[in-house]
Amino acid sequence: MRKLEELKTGKAKRLYNTDDATVLWVEYLDQATALNGKRKEKIASKGALNNQIDCLLFNYLIQNGIATDFIRQVSATEQLIHPVKMIPLEVVVRNLASGSFQRKFATTYLQPLSRPIVELFYKSDALDDPFINDDQVEVLGLASAAELAAIKQLALKINQLLQSRFAQANLTLVDFKIEVGYLAGQLVLADEISPDSCRLVDQTTQASLDKDVFRKQTGDLTTVYQEVLTRLQNSEVAHVSR
Amino acid sequence: MRKLEELKTGKAKRLYNTDDATVLWVEYLDQATALNGKRKEKIASKGALNNQIDCLLFNYLIQNGIATDFIRQVSATEQLIHPVKMIPLEVVVRNLASGSFQRKFATTYLQPLSRPIVELFYKSDALDDPFINDDQVEVLGLASAAELAAIKQLALKINQLLQSRFAQANLTLVDFKIEVGYLAGQLVLADEISPDSCRLVDQTTQASLDKDVFRKQTGDLTTVYQEVLTRLQNSEVAHVSR
Ligand SMILES: Nc1ncnc2c1ncn2[C@@H]1O[C@H](COP(=O)(O)OP(=O)(O)O)[C@@H](O)[C@H]1O
Ligand SMILES: Nc1ncnc2c1ncn2[C@@H]1O[C@H](COP(=O)(O)OP(=O)(O)O)[C@@H](O)[C@H]1O
Ligand SMILES: [Mg+2]
Ligand SMILES: [Mg+2]
Repeated sequence: MRKLEELKTGKAKRLYNTDDATVLWVEYLDQATALNGKRKEKIASKGALNNQIDCLLFNYLIQNGIATDFIRQVSATEQLIHPVKMIPLEVVVRNLASGSFQRKFATTYLQPLSRPIVELFYKSDALDDPFINDDQVEVLGLASAAELAAIKQLALKINQLLQSRFAQANLTLVDFKIEVGYLAGQLVLADEISPDSCRLVDQTTQASLDKDVFRKQTGDLTTVYQEVLTRLQNSEVAHVSR
Repeated sequence: MRKLEELKTGKAKRLYNTDDATVLWVEYLDQATALNGKRKEKIASKGALNNQIDCLLFNYLIQNGIATDFIRQVSATEQLIHPVKMIPLEVVVRNLASGSFQRKFATTYLQPLSRPIVELFYKSDALDDPFINDDQVEVLGLASAAELAAIKQLALKINQLLQSRFAQANLTLVDFKIEVGYLAGQLVLADEISPDSCRLVDQTTQASLDKDVFRKQTGDLTTVYQEVLTRLQNSEVAHVSR
């Protein structure tokens, strides 16, 4: 497997082609952004922490029957994935009120929702990732009604699995964002799952252990991401969900 | 029927109780607002124009099988309605791209959509009427999934009827907003339908004949609302849709 030219670079990762057309080489970057990229900082070892957390979680999800783009970890900061025809949606699942939901509806922070909900955002830097409803997704040609049903079902299944995995690490999964797409015609989980894309709070203290410490400048990102990785590693034993 | 004390006053109408508990007396006001009430102007004869247009359209919809809160017109500016347990949603139907849809998705003005779509906004002055998706409506307890399905079906049926009625007046219905609620346990169309709550363009010239002339300060509100009323009255003949 040889790493060839760069394919694309986003706010968190750089993707390279390889000598195998079915494989991309991913490098997680030491970079944190907020406000959709308007605030940007170099943060040492963030790439390694997110890559390791992501590899651990994708391996767990695969063992529990979730189809993904993930192949294997290559180094502390690198992994191999399959190229996916991405659907330009950010698929958010919420268990407790936080972030834009809390702001929009003036609810209490971490107020439990009566059931997990899905929100869709149109992944478009030019449009600033607008919140979008199902009818809009359909008429904009981003996904059909049947595809949307499958995407939501996948997202809610992943939510169940992640909730139980994080609970083993004494973490409550408040909400998270995934990206999905097609791999050989099958809908799969792609992109990453990390404290950049999840809201996690300590089950006992409710302290944030995710990117909110960077967004709100309330703590040290490296310290809390390291804490998440360590807790996940230390609870690796019982990781197959029943 | 005696008009008693004021029940509530909104941006466009004043509702009074009457000596019949099943009847409210509505007075349409000579007032136009934009930016969710932040801009407000007194506009002579607006109340009379909107009340007359609304009465004409609600009569048409009732004749075509739509359940509503409407009873009858009382004067140029007044009508009687049934009190409704309102669902706090603004239900928007779009046929062509305009307004917030056009802005959010950077589409062309009046670009046709492949099918009519429904958007929901949480009617809350305190929250500034946020755009809301079905899952959020459900967990906030505003409506159940079954109620949402019925609301959308009603809105799309009203869209079909209004499209054909406005077409008889050489007007294209770009989009509109309705409010709905329960009357004796039945889901009904309530509130108003007028150039305040519809986007209408001339079928030939595409000139705006609605509140956009006030919002964008591109024309005289009274002149275009009078034009809409006159066109609807002159096409009254063939008003039962097949
Ligand atoms: N399996 C995949 N195949 C192709 N593209 C992918 C895959 N997984 C993720 N991507 C895309 O790689 C890009 C880089 O990721 P990232 O740095 O997180 O970007 P962003 O700034 O959009 O968040 C993103 O556009 C993401 O959607
Ligand atoms: N049949 C009805 N029963 C009770 N309330 C109604 C009915 N129809 C409309 N309303 C409500 O009457 C209020 C006044 O109307 P309006 O002036 O249009 O208010 P707004 O400023 O909210 O647009 C609104 O809250 C509207 O939802
Ligand atoms: Mg990303
Ligand atoms: Mg109103």
